[in-house]
Amino acid sequence: MSSAKQGGPVQPSVSVWRPLGADEITATGGIWAEKQQLNADTILRHCESWMERIGWAGNFDRAAAGTIDGAHAGIEFVDSEVYKLLEAMAWELGRAYSADLDRRFHALTARVAAAQEADGYLNTSFGRPGQPPRYSSLESGHELYCFGHLLQAAVARLRTGHDDQLPQAARRLADHVYDQFGPAGLVAVCGHPEIEMALAELARATGERRYLELARLFVERRGKGTLGPHPFGQEYFQDDIPVREATTLRGHAVRALYLACGALDVATETGDDGLAAAVRRQWAHGASRRTYITGGVGSHHQDEAYGDDFELPADRAYAETCAGIASVMLSWRLLLATGEDKYADLIERTLLNNVLASPRADGRAFYYTNPLHQRTPGLVPDEDQLVHRAESGLRAPWFEVSCCPTNVARTLASVSLYFATASDDGIQLHQYGDYRLTTELAAGVVSLQVGGGYPAGGPVSVTVIDAPDRDLTLRLRVPAWARGRAALSEAPTARTTRHVEIRRVFRAGDTVTIAFPDEARATYPDRRIDAARGTFAVERGPLVLALESPDLPSAWSVNDISADPRSIAADDGGTAIDVYRHEPSEEEWPYYAEPGGSAGERVRARLIPYHQWANRGPSTMRAWLPLAAGNG
Amino acid sequence: MSSAKQGGPVQPSVSVWRPLGADEITATGGIWAEKQQLNADTILRHCESWMERIGWAGNFDRAAAGTIDGAHAGIEFVDSEVYKLLEAMAWELGRAYSADLDRRFHALTARVAAAQEADGYLNTSFGRPGQPPRYSSLESGHELYCFGHLLQAAVARLRTGHDDQLPQAARRLADHVYDQFGPAGLVAVCGHPEIEMALAELARATGERRYLELARLFVERRGKGTLGPHPFGQEYFQDDIPVREATTLRGHAVRALYLACGALDVATETGDDGLAAAVRRQWAHGASRRTYITGGVGSHHQDEAYGDDFELPADRAYAETCAGIASVMLSWRLLLATGEDKYADLIERTLLNNVLASPRADGRAFYYTNPLHQRTPGLVPDEDQLVHRAESGLRAPWFEVSCCPTNVARTLASVSLYFATASDDGIQLHQYGDYRLTTELAAGVVSLQVGGGYPAGGPVSVTVIDAPDRDLTLRLRVPAWARGRAALSEAPTARTTRHVEIRRVFRAGDTVTIAFPDEARATYPDRRIDAARGTFAVERGPLVLALESPDLPSAWSVNDISADPRSIAADDGGTAIDVYRHEPSEEEWPYYAEPGGSAGERVRARLIPYHQWANRGPSTMRAWLPLAAGNG
Repeated sequence: MSSAKQGGPVQPSVSVWRPLGADEITATGGIWAEKQQLNADTILRHCESWMERIGWAGNFDRAAAGTIDGAHAGIEFVDSEVYKLLEAMAWELGRAYSADLDRRFHALTARVAAAQEADGYLNTSFGRPGQPPRYSSLESGHELYCFGHLLQAAVARLRTGHDDQLPQAARRLADHVYDQFGPAGLVAVCGHPEIEMALAELARATGERRYLELARLFVERRGKGTLGPHPFGQEYFQDDIPVREATTLRGHAVRALYLACGALDVATETGDDGLAAAVRRQWAHGASRRTYITGGVGSHHQDEAYGDDFELPADRAYAETCAGIASVMLSWRLLLATGEDKYADLIERTLLNNVLASPRADGRAFYYTNPLHQRTPGLVPDEDQLVHRAESGLRAPWFEVSCCPTNVARTLASVSLYFATASDDGIQLHQYGDYRLTTELAAGVVSLQVGGGYPAGGPVSVTVIDAPDRDLTLRLRVPAWARGRAALSEAPTARTTRHVEIRRVFRAGDTVTIAFPDEARATYPDRRIDAARGTFAVERGPLVLALESPDLPSAWSVNDISADPRSIAADDGGTAIDVYRHEPSEEEWPYYAEPGGSAGERVRARLIPYHQWANRGPSTMRAWLPLAAGNG
Repeated sequence: MSSAKQGGPVQPSVSVWRPLGADEITATGGIWAEKQQLNADTILRHCESWMERIGWAGNFDRAAAGTIDGAHAGIEFVDSEVYKLLEAMAWELGRAYSADLDRRFHALTARVAAAQEADGYLNTSFGRPGQPPRYSSLESGHELYCFGHLLQAAVARLRTGHDDQLPQAARRLADHVYDQFGPAGLVAVCGHPEIEMALAELARATGERRYLELARLFVERRGKGTLGPHPFGQEYFQDDIPVREATTLRGHAVRALYLACGALDVATETGDDGLAAAVRRQWAHGASRRTYITGGVGSHHQDEAYGDDFELPADRAYAETCAGIASVMLSWRLLLATGEDKYADLIERTLLNNVLASPRADGRAFYYTNPLHQRTPGLVPDEDQLVHRAESGLRAPWFEVSCCPTNVARTLASVSLYFATASDDGIQLHQYGDYRLTTELAAGVVSLQVGGGYPAGGPVSVTVIDAPDRDLTLRLRVPAWARGRAALSEAPTARTTRHVEIRRVFRAGDTVTIAFPDEARATYPDRRIDAARGTFAVERGPLVLALESPDLPSAWSVNDISADPRSIAADDGGTAIDVYRHEPSEEEWPYYAEPGGSAGERVRARLIPYHQWANRGPSTMRAWLPLAAGNG
């Protein structure tokens, strides 16, 4: 293992494909450039402003000054929000340097570092006079979870070329954790996985193998009951079954996915094929039985957890933004490790339909949960008020547990790094959009401009800016939603239903285009998804569409309609469908001797991308449309 | 208002019909006598044994001894469990006196009374040295809630003819609460309604109008934001909207229903027609849009709360046993106040299909939540372990919040008091079963034996044991499920689709029979219940039936079947149906371009009453059956 000073959010020492760094790939237009600009201009400042205002950044100052006793702001693990913000800033500085952001980043880093104790420990909620002792609440105190986020921020800093104050603090902290929990330390794990992947990544970024060894210990210890009992059961924090024996993703969704990321990182770096196979098995089970059509995961509000197989209620979908991000993190690791397109498919679906649904169009409010059916219009949130995390309605500016906004920020700042990879003799395009890619292969520098405005429709174009005078392989994913239908501008040298390859000498100015079906389509749920029986969704390209109340007559409700999948058609650049209204019955008991209702009045209604919903004020919405009588 | 020394759980000073007391009506056979015997023999002792073992009863001893600081067992409001057990014992002593139970009742009462403080205050979690101050946590401390349950136990004692230690303690406690929260006291309410109906009932039972005035104040203060913010919103504890302005049951289901009970009691005793109308409106909205087919209520696990209209997931149904009991308490009050049969219909449905589902057949384990679909077999609980309240699976012996077992106990001990009422010149039979009724009307004593083994099937018989030589009216409810079909042994003098009346002179030995349709039937959900779309339930008489895995071939799962409603038929005394198995698809993504699946292999499967499920070991179950292709 060698220290890498460049690269993306995951940098395995062994992989089928090599990830690219922030200096190698840049979004140049379209939805991703727009969202990255929103992040740079608004979301980062929004997060900074809230953290100042409610004292989460100030916790570090009070800790450093010795005045934190009784003066800690927020729940125990708000340090992690500051670290995720630092990670977002670090990626953003790597993506598009700004002196102002650089100043803000260093100022915040200095406040964090000032709170680090002499032995490397760094947490504003534990261990100082008047606070609970260090490591006294591993089940719910989230100390190691917070550490992990600091380490990930430091990795982002290292991968964007800077080994300065934050990585130095991270090394001291990781050394401390190794002393406390390493081979000679406490046999324990954190209630919330996170530090596993953070340590593995810090090992990759620094070359320090002890951090990998510690990550391995945390993964191996899990599932052996070292954590105390939890009201929601040991499954909640994956302490029920050892990682390598588990067959599915279960319990708290973010915890489950972060743990799987760490386990795969450890498996990759230690050549542990059994552990890697266990993670692949868990992903496959989760994708095929426990994932919403948006890519969202988590069916229970109570414990923010996966449900049983095919338990996927639309209205009570938790589908936490952070869980979607964690799913992307896991799929990306598996894509690098295996080269299989199915992982890129789920990344695409999840980014566009779950993660992007979180930030409001103006970047000043966020969804924590992402249900697929909103029955009653939400209340307009007070833009100055913290809200509890779980209930949806309209997006809120900030939360008591505010993991999602900062997670969105770090993801947007680094999202282009998930678009493409390189190999010794070629480039693989996994996600489409408008971006520029420049990287050095064995044969020389390749530079490509990808365009076409995906996912807005129209063919994807790949224009060669620069390439060595040697055979290279351009590998293009055919998204699963295209079902093998892809029109290529030249004959591929290899083709499956999931990707095409063109191997030849590419010259500057060459353009390859690939077109996928552009028409909207009906999609039907597996028969075992009880909550979606008798319905269909409409998708167009990689986007799940939704019916939102502003697109219906004002007296109508999404709760009392059906729709006809045969009527789906393009409409003024968008998609429209025939929707039927049913007269609400006003019975005193809602169960009848005969099946109820036939279709009534009809309108033509526009469908919008699901991720855009709730940007027009309080509304109701549904992604699964009940089949009008006589269909399906 | 006059002091009543006899009567049932609710004794309004004004009502359409007069409730009967424990000395006037007795179950003599069938399911209710059997469950009451189970309660007497097993459930009461089970509750006593757990409360001793885990120190909940001992809290009173420690409080009395001054050693409770740091030694309180259980969560803050476990006093209420002891009180509900006392209430159950009091009703049971009224139903079927036993010297042994009488001794246990007095012993436990003495321990409670010993902990009462000089000023009447009585709570083992607050107010003593080392404990939080009295009334320092009205949002979640449940002090007044606990008081309410003590008052209700005292009312049960008074109504069964004993004005002894428990009622005396209750008066002192209620006087204390009047001083603290009355017209000259703190303008506040308890986070968990309960004391409102308890005070109103204690006023009825003692004639002390101050208690009614205090109940009225608590009802009127609610919905005006006197409680601090709650993470689940003010709706959670009904502090969002004043009772008389609210249009539906909302928030935490038990809280919502207990509050409605108290509000109706206050409205009845003060002649407040506006308040009474508000409660009727809330009941009607809840029954028609927020109630499961079992009568269960509460669609959210997270906050144990009502969902939106028609949000009624089968698998995540919370349908808490206590909420079902609270619903019966409210419907009973409305039945007495209005005389309308719809309230008796919901009582019948809820008792037989929600409340009765809670106790295991042996009375030693209970369901807290009552879902209508169990996807994976539950784990066999440790019979010696407390479990967290919310997750289902198999019934558990006891819970950290163990409200349901004691609520079941008090309900079973008094259940026969909901069966019938009297008026000046007649008797009204609201529930059927096997029971004896003897009461004095203006014209003289009437005694009836009701029989027929309902709900097992066969006609209901009403045999006159004794009656005055005067015209009387016998009023018999025609359950809503019978849809007006009722075959009577003689021509009624009045008839609607919901009841029949026979007015004549009845003589000892006369028998009237009434027969309802006996065949099982398909029932279809309202089109707006998304979670049950494309399914049907099977009901027989007042019972909701369910398909449980032991009645399917061992390789089958209830998650992958459909059924044909045309095939419902009697089978060896029970009910059977054609069930089709679908081959599970093993796709990597569970959303398809075409609607999936056609019916495969067929078996004939027995259906069981829903309330009997999970008495044969771990199993899966569903009440809503997916319609086989080509049906519905």
